[in-house]
Amino acid sequence: MVYSKITKPMQAALVADMKEVLQAGTHPPIDQLHGMMQYHMGWLDKNLEPDNAPAGKQIRPLLTMLCAQAAGGDWTQAIPAASAIELTHNFSLIHDDIEDDSPTRRGRDTLWTIFGIPLAINAGDGMFAAARVALGRLEDRGVPAETIVRAFRRFDDTCLKLTQGQDLDMSFETRQDVNVDEYVRMITGKTSVLLSLCAELGALIGQQSADTVQNYHQFGLNLGLAFQVLDDILGIWGDEETIGKSATTDISTRKKTLPILFGLENSPKLANIYFDTSIPEAEFVPEVVGLLDGCGAQEYAQKRAADYSDLALSHLEAAGGAGEAGQALHELTHMLLGRKS
Amino acid sequence: MVYSKITKPMQAALVADMKEVLQAGTHPPIDQLHGMMQYHMGWLDKNLEPDNAPAGKQIRPLLTMLCAQAAGGDWTQAIPAASAIELTHNFSLIHDDIEDDSPTRRGRDTLWTIFGIPLAINAGDGMFAAARVALGRLEDRGVPAETIVRAFRRFDDTCLKLTQGQDLDMSFETRQDVNVDEYVRMITGKTSVLLSLCAELGALIGQQSADTVQNYHQFGLNLGLAFQVLDDILGIWGDEETIGKSATTDISTRKKTLPILFGLENSPKLANIYFDTSIPEAEFVPEVVGLLDGCGAQEYAQKRAADYSDLALSHLEAAGGAGEAGQALHELTHMLLGRKS
Repeated sequence: MVYSKITKPMQAALVADMKEVLQAGTHPPIDQLHGMMQYHMGWLDKNLEPDNAPAGKQIRPLLTMLCAQAAGGDWTQAIPAASAIELTHNFSLIHDDIEDDSPTRRGRDTLWTIFGIPLAINAGDGMFAAARVALGRLEDRGVPAETIVRAFRRFDDTCLKLTQGQDLDMSFETRQDVNVDEYVRMITGKTSVLLSLCAELGALIGQQSADTVQNYHQFGLNLGLAFQVLDDILGIWGDEETIGKSATTDISTRKKTLPILFGLENSPKLANIYFDTSIPEAEFVPEVVGLLDGCGAQEYAQKRAADYSDLALSHLEAAGGAGEAGQALHELTHMLLGRKS
Repeated sequence: MVYSKITKPMQAALVADMKEVLQAGTHPPIDQLHGMMQYHMGWLDKNLEPDNAPAGKQIRPLLTMLCAQAAGGDWTQAIPAASAIELTHNFSLIHDDIEDDSPTRRGRDTLWTIFGIPLAINAGDGMFAAARVALGRLEDRGVPAETIVRAFRRFDDTCLKLTQGQDLDMSFETRQDVNVDEYVRMITGKTSVLLSLCAELGALIGQQSADTVQNYHQFGLNLGLAFQVLDDILGIWGDEETIGKSATTDISTRKKTLPILFGLENSPKLANIYFDTSIPEAEFVPEVVGLLDGCGAQEYAQKRAADYSDLALSHLEAAGGAGEAGQALHELTHMLLGRKS
């Protein structure tokens, strides 16, 4: 795959850049705050000694660098934007873990369980500030000031939308009256706006026209929506081995994903039982799956995912990304959307 | 006073701009997140109905607009920077209130007591993002792109330093071995870097030379340090009526302010008893004050405050701020430092 070959140096450059921004070059860290941020990134262990924990696939920042190159730019100029996006994602994870009361992430203790909530909130704020410090370094790579201002403003609008999505997501947990439209607004904020920013910033730094930048933006946006809806489908009908968790968790925890919200709107029986916690789980899960199947929830969700996928691919086509990076973007898209072609 | 006259339209413009950024023009608010942010600002009550709660003196954003005008610029061009600073200050208050477990602020329930910690953390993040959205609006007021990039980078570096100061401050609470140098580093982060940013951004937008911008920066930095040390002195030797709280709270809560840290380093007896919580308060407070007086802690703190004040005033002089705004800056400085001339 071209994707693996082409992203390898990108990923190395990304990590080196983030380490510079978070001042990971000295040991011990310059202060507790930087130690905490470096722990979260997996570069230190909980005693703030060197560590090398897995960092995830880093698809978002790679998307930025791939889009910059596919748009005819120099991917190394996009490194600061890629770092900014990955650090923003990590800031949101630090705060999400507190908000969701999650004790572990990727097999490691979350920051708040080690340092307590007050210091961890503040370390998240530090990571958010550091993300923007990273973005400002576009100037050091010769990106024109007008482009940087554009990038900053798109970045900040996106961050505000991320918090809107997170607010909706948390509020949904205590509500029984969420509808499909609200749900799409929520996943747009939680997942898609950041992916659309990834693609858009790459194209911006590649100095593309407003139309092309908009195509990259729409590509990322629809890619995110398609990915999220496919994830919702896997959360009910998925193969446990593939998704790495029980395929019935979404139902037993009463999540409100797209197929379920469709079911609640279209199956009065489902609406009647879904929030009844007195039904034993062994009975509840198959009954809900049966009702979802009965009202066409899977077909509905698959159709929506296919529509978003088609939109993503047609915008990628229209963006006209070229060369190996363009090919890698196609590969990445198909990988994320589980398509063969 | 020129200060009152000249800052009145500035304050009105600031509030109008922040209301635009936080989309306060519609009722009900566009979503819960914006409602929460507007509640914190005092524009809505806890039921998200219109309110008009006192907003504080807003000295930081006024400093920015005054410096812009004193530096020969148009203060209205600096409104976005002023908003960004005031919103950043408010973001930090939302998170501080969670971190310090504070149930009220300015006589109102804090955001987390009404909406819970998870939603309030996220609303603080939203306010932080909104501060940057505000700053990006410099572009809409015709500020050159190079200046905006400079402003963004200084802003972001400062935000990272703020979180470093906050981390130190929280860590000091559980430590008994804080020294004077660490303390100065902490108050620099907590108070001074934001004031220095206020002054510096004003001068930047006034299109001043790097030297002059640096003088404004140093003016704000030393003003903040002087103000904090004077506040520490009032916290021990102040007149209760003037400072609005018992002048012994700092001692009875074992705070580690500058005079106390000097005392701990210079009076072995004080070091011996200060963290002994078995001593009755009525006996403890006068004994500590006596030991502080005995080792010259008040004189030491007053000398440091005077040195910082002199530095602030000499940098303000060197900056050469002119006209009514320059006069207002002198008035503000003397007001904050409690000097007659």
